[in-house]
Amino acid sequence: MVDLKKIKAFAFDVDGVLTDGLMLAMPGGDLLRQFDAKDAFGIRMASLNGYHLAVITGAKSLSIKERLSYCGIPEEDIYQRSRIKMKDFAVFCGKYGLQPDEVMFFGDDIPDIPVMEACIGVAPADAVPEAKAAAKIVAEQGGGRGAVRHVIESVMRAQGTWSWENSARNYEKVF
Amino acid sequence: MVDLKKIKAFAFDVDGVLTDGLMLAMPGGDLLRQFDAKDAFGIRMASLNGYHLAVITGAKSLSIKERLSYCGIPEEDIYQRSRIKMKDFAVFCGKYGLQPDEVMFFGDDIPDIPVMEACIGVAPADAVPEAKAAAKIVAEQGGGRGAVRHVIESVMRAQGTWSWENSARNYEKVF
Amino acid sequence: MVDLKKIKAFAFDVDGVLTDGLMLAMPGGDLLRQFDAKDAFGIRMASLNGYHLAVITGAKSLSIKERLSYCGIPEEDIYQRSRIKMKDFAVFCGKYGLQPDEVMFFGDDIPDIPVMEACIGVAPADAVPEAKAAAKIVAEQGGGRGAVRHVIESVMRAQGTWSWENSARNYEKVF
Amino acid sequence: MVDLKKIKAFAFDVDGVLTDGLMLAMPGGDLLRQFDAKDAFGIRMASLNGYHLAVITGAKSLSIKERLSYCGIPEEDIYQRSRIKMKDFAVFCGKYGLQPDEVMFFGDDIPDIPVMEACIGVAPADAVPEAKAAAKIVAEQGGGRGAVRHVIESVMRAQGTWSWENSARNYEKVF
Repeated sequence: MVDLKKIKAFAFDVDGVLTDGLMLAMPGGDLLRQFDAKDAFGIRMASLNGYHLAVITGAKSLSIKERLSYCGIPEEDIYQRSRIKMKDFAVFCGKYGLQPDEVMFFGDDIPDIPVMEACIGVAPADAVPEAKAAAKIVAEQGGGRGAVRHVIESVMRAQGTWSWENSARNYEKVF
Repeated sequence: MVDLKKIKAFAFDVDGVLTDGLMLAMPGGDLLRQFDAKDAFGIRMASLNGYHLAVITGAKSLSIKERLSYCGIPEEDIYQRSRIKMKDFAVFCGKYGLQPDEVMFFGDDIPDIPVMEACIGVAPADAVPEAKAAAKIVAEQGGGRGAVRHVIESVMRAQGTWSWENSARNYEKVF
Repeated sequence: MVDLKKIKAFAFDVDGVLTDGLMLAMPGGDLLRQFDAKDAFGIRMASLNGYHLAVITGAKSLSIKERLSYCGIPEEDIYQRSRIKMKDFAVFCGKYGLQPDEVMFFGDDIPDIPVMEACIGVAPADAVPEAKAAAKIVAEQGGGRGAVRHVIESVMRAQGTWSWENSARNYEKVF
Repeated sequence: MVDLKKIKAFAFDVDGVLTDGLMLAMPGGDLLRQFDAKDAFGIRMASLNGYHLAVITGAKSLSIKERLSYCGIPEEDIYQRSRIKMKDFAVFCGKYGLQPDEVMFFGDDIPDIPVMEACIGVAPADAVPEAKAAAKIVAEQGGGRGAVRHVIESVMRAQGTWSWENSARNYEKVF
């Protein structure tokens, strides 16, 4: 049983988690992604209310860093081209003194599984079976289509921090 | 019960309303959106027949202004980076002397709710639950996939203004 | 009852017919579209086998002309920014001596209806109700997702011209 | 009955196989495609474990070569603008001494059928009926949405080579 009241941090894989897994291949090799507005709102609400946020992805693209730092994830906590994700995850947890049951990691495929097993793993509905099996929470929503929003919102509601009235003033200042 | 015959103006959030909520993140930070041709036809019909039109969005992108002004929404009534949407909504209503029951506002997420409650709120089928609860009309169609077209068309049919024969000559001139 | 054996020409609206209606709004005002590979194969087969092909669209974008002429639609028969589509349709039919029951026009929205009624109108599954009512054939497939391919293939099979073996040699030369 | 244990190579059409068939038409004539992250992971796992990989497509775009070579398909085995696919397929098989029952070719439309019939043909769920009829395996997943990943994974599991633990160290070096 996951204790939602303990969560202090959310960390995310990108492709298949913050997107539906599709990448537009550009000439020159860059890959562009589509992010969801409702997911972004959830991430911003978490940021405004003091949750720690990180991205740990095997991908690397300037557009990922720009997009997600604009949503409130600190640039220094966006780990791209992460090959052994546990290493970067350990750095992130150590930096903020986070315990395993205080962090959610959202993953959808095999390279995410060690981190998902090391903390509170969350899988979107369209994750691969192994990732779902490793997850403590499987969202009803797909990657890049509300899974991240829904789970962040559930945590913040459980903690009484999901309040637009409290957040709007800061929202105006920050975003 | 909404009196469709009173409606004189349509105002819209962008992401999740005029789009399905997905945003293509470009290098440099700009976000590009996909708009629907049938929604655009509805907006143009409203424009040709003298309805007031506005956009009130937290987003900001040159491509939003260019796309929607081309559809017949006056540039000066496109409010981007709107943080407290009620402020911009009040400016829009005051400018054209619009009463609350004469304006529809289409919204899909929490920052839209105050405006939706202040006039005739409309939510696409895939809006968040709170936005649907705040709406006086919930469309069967999703955001960016016909919700806007369907509701505009319903209003104009109720008022006898949805007539391509009457509109085509102006359409030829304007668009 | 439509006599598929009489068809000598296929003409198309673009948005919602050769695409699913979504348009990516670019900075500068251009709109980019996603076309379907299977639809394109159908258009090329028709081109290789001597059918007349045209596009009559209210839209205007260099990318439309480039994409569709590459599929075998002559540039001179691509009518963009067409406001009264019947005018351009009459020019196309006159140029090639086509009779109303020899031409299919694929449309999905109100501006397409006069042309659809003037020849063999075809509507994708996701056309607006008025366009479906005006159509003599309603495809089971959506716009930009196989409707064009399926109907072209049905016509060519009825006429015995849908043969890859006969077409492949020319295909190699032309495309 | 297909003997999955014999497979030594995977070859792919692009549009409708490694994508869902949609192509974004850019000004200038280039077509951009969306590739799936889970499919890419499958291709990389095959590459890391010594399977031969090839692409044989009628399309031509720098972005195809860049994207797929980054996934581990050798540039020299990416055949673009292939008109008679059997020619290129024969070159690929000859180069690596591959027998027909050692190679899978993934195709979704008519030009793919001769190659599909000449080896172990695989069709995504949304291939045209003729391609499905020619396939020895029809995936439950659509093109660009998991069909390639699922079938590669099935082969590698049957051969005992689908092991992230074994692959991760090389993955870190190569990608």
